[in-house]
Amino acid sequence: MLRTHYSSEITPDDDGKNVTVAGWIHEIRDLGGITFIVIRDRRGLAQVTLPKKKVDKKLSEISRSISRESVVVVSGAVKREEKAPNGYEIIPNEIRVLSGAESPLPLDVTGKVGADLDTRLDARFVDLRRPEIRAIFKVRHHTLSAIRIFLESNGFIEINTPKVVATATEGGTALFPITYFEGEAFLSQSPQLYKQMMMAAGLDRVYEIGPIFRAEEHDTRKHLNEVISIDIEASFVTHEEVMSILEEVVKHAHGHVSKHCAHELDVLGISLSVPKTPFRRISYDEAMDIARGHDECKGVEWGDDLDTAAEKAVGESIGEYYFIVDWPTDIKPYYVEPYEDRPEVCKAFDLMDPRMEMASGAQRVHSYDFLRKRIESKGLDAEGFKCYLDAFRYGMPPHAGWGMGVERLLMSMLGLANIRETVLFPRDRRRLSP
Amino acid sequence: MLRTHYSSEITPDDDGKNVTVAGWIHEIRDLGGITFIVIRDRRGLAQVTLPKKKVDKKLSEISRSISRESVVVVSGAVKREEKAPNGYEIIPNEIRVLSGAESPLPLDVTGKVGADLDTRLDARFVDLRRPEIRAIFKVRHHTLSAIRIFLESNGFIEINTPKVVATATEGGTALFPITYFEGEAFLSQSPQLYKQMMMAAGLDRVYEIGPIFRAEEHDTRKHLNEVISIDIEASFVTHEEVMSILEEVVKHAHGHVSKHCAHELDVLGISLSVPKTPFRRISYDEAMDIARGHDECKGVEWGDDLDTAAEKAVGESIGEYYFIVDWPTDIKPYYVEPYEDRPEVCKAFDLMDPRMEMASGAQRVHSYDFLRKRIESKGLDAEGFKCYLDAFRYGMPPHAGWGMGVERLLMSMLGLANIRETVLFPRDRRRLSP
Repeated sequence: MLRTHYSSEITPDDDGKNVTVAGWIHEIRDLGGITFIVIRDRRGLAQVTLPKKKVDKKLSEISRSISRESVVVVSGAVKREEKAPNGYEIIPNEIRVLSGAESPLPLDVTGKVGADLDTRLDARFVDLRRPEIRAIFKVRHHTLSAIRIFLESNGFIEINTPKVVATATEGGTALFPITYFEGEAFLSQSPQLYKQMMMAAGLDRVYEIGPIFRAEEHDTRKHLNEVISIDIEASFVTHEEVMSILEEVVKHAHGHVSKHCAHELDVLGISLSVPKTPFRRISYDEAMDIARGHDECKGVEWGDDLDTAAEKAVGESIGEYYFIVDWPTDIKPYYVEPYEDRPEVCKAFDLMDPRMEMASGAQRVHSYDFLRKRIESKGLDAEGFKCYLDAFRYGMPPHAGWGMGVERLLMSMLGLANIRETVLFPRDRRRLSP
Repeated sequence: MLRTHYSSEITPDDDGKNVTVAGWIHEIRDLGGITFIVIRDRRGLAQVTLPKKKVDKKLSEISRSISRESVVVVSGAVKREEKAPNGYEIIPNEIRVLSGAESPLPLDVTGKVGADLDTRLDARFVDLRRPEIRAIFKVRHHTLSAIRIFLESNGFIEINTPKVVATATEGGTALFPITYFEGEAFLSQSPQLYKQMMMAAGLDRVYEIGPIFRAEEHDTRKHLNEVISIDIEASFVTHEEVMSILEEVVKHAHGHVSKHCAHELDVLGISLSVPKTPFRRISYDEAMDIARGHDECKGVEWGDDLDTAAEKAVGESIGEYYFIVDWPTDIKPYYVEPYEDRPEVCKAFDLMDPRMEMASGAQRVHSYDFLRKRIESKGLDAEGFKCYLDAFRYGMPPHAGWGMGVERLLMSMLGLANIRETVLFPRDRRRLSP
């Protein structure tokens, strides 16, 4: 290890101790008789002080020649110094330049000079040097970690299902085709059919956190063509029970991030409150009533999906996380179970952030005959679903589940305006690199 | 929840208590005066006993009509019974059939009738009902969980990099092409370039566990076209330091599985020993010397890669996990750093199970100029690597990392002969479904 300490591991009590820090030149201030170099590493900043008279001439020369954002290793003695950022400075006896930075930088690291999102994403490796950008990905890390801990402690087993598949989950056309040796395959748009098959296998409670791919030609702030989906499926439970699991997952993620990312939330200027459960449940009918009260949504009819305007109208009226339940059967996929006594309505739910849909799920159809009919009623060829349908013929328990994009959850938690802020290297119709 | 208890949650001390279990009909034995039904759930088996004289006639009728592997919910009173599997039986007052199973089953669930791997994989949802198959995936779950815990507690941050990419990592041809809107893209064969770019971003220690895709036309027991790769990259460290992390990861996974999967290891008949670290290191030169001592490998020359026969010869001679270090520079990728004083040899390592390669890694080149030269020396067009190369121009620290397929690790831990045993739905040239 080239360093002995991260910047944040040194305290004023280390006065007189020899340390080695390694990182990027965040700032250089040459005041004539004294030069200050601020080194940045993953955990923060360390001030290196070079009083011209006291330090080796060679070190002064190096300090004058290094460019900002170069990578250096600095060894020296810690000195208590109240005016320095963390109450200490380092008086160097060695400065090694490991990697010089060209100038100008593709992006201003201090954030003083604004840059548009495209420029930032093109130079993501520099963009991420800004604390407020790095903070988002620290929160992302802790969010995923929190969700895994929660699900595993609730008996869920992690599965990995294939991303290269032979057929569409829902017979839709929003698929990316792959040349698979001599034939054709597709990128998976959801682990839906696989996680359901695991219910026939008796795995009972499974989860997967993995990429899904949608070839939709969206160009919005909340859509991407590749995202990470959190998926669960559980047997012998109802849609209401998996709704409870979903709201607890969201609550737990907020709590975990509040606890483990206090510094990052501070950098982002966010005071994160942990939502109370249960979340409010409103029926599709109630949502439509609210939407119809708004001029832009006057024309919506029962059976329509909620468009962006309707989502906005309802979201503004509720103002916190909520579920929309009891959807029209016809606008939900074939695998959603209708109510026995009211088959035009089904046991589907969407979890909503006031601005958008966050997750959707349902009680599933588990009868082979009925599922086959439902597939056919959607105009799909049941033969194309043979592998999936077969899993319903030899003992399929009742089951329910949901899927939630981690990017939407992050947008919601951190109040971000564009989903691209939550992904290191976003993929959309116009962006395929870096 | 349809059940009040999993089978394993009931004990003889629950004598007289009312419980509801849910699961599959594992076995029915009608002895005339008494019928035994064994219910199987994720956690084990529960015996339901129907003495003809004591239970409702309707229940006896149901018990005679249900087929094996049907899904049922059974409520009744627990009765202490020493002869029953867990020391208790359930005297039912209700049996509900939730989903009948057709007959014959596509596969024998008891495992008494052998089936070849293809038949098993075609009916994976039934195959997984066998305890020894389910055990593999419980171990897989705990292995991934253990590795995440270990890496996160060692300061690694999880990242997700795109699986749809514009160019090949190593300029190779083993890529699956995707139709990406109007253009072409590829499935990612490794997060290599992205994780290195995160070093320029200052994330310092990152890991990713995600799918990688290789369009290689292998047809072996240890290759697949889609696997889950565990990747790490760390800054300001050497290849030797990431080798230590790798061996600790492997050791920790063994320890965690030993502790949390005792029952599964028992079902699989495996006594798992936790390997001691450090693992033995042998140089490429030493490996070649060992290989040349075997008839099939007499013709190998310095600079050749180790083929299957050589891997086998060396593996048999060592007999436990080992590293091969100091590889010829020419057979390793452009991003591997050569030794300064002996540039024909490089700072790459492979982690070997006696039967095969498990992981590979290296100290990376971090100088922009040298990396560009190395790319060109491999006959690749540096312009195609512009986004990646740019990350080396503005302060790139020294860094090192590795990648390990979780399937190979599982094969090794559990002594499995075919990598397909470790994947729910394997993908190879011939197999794209289910």
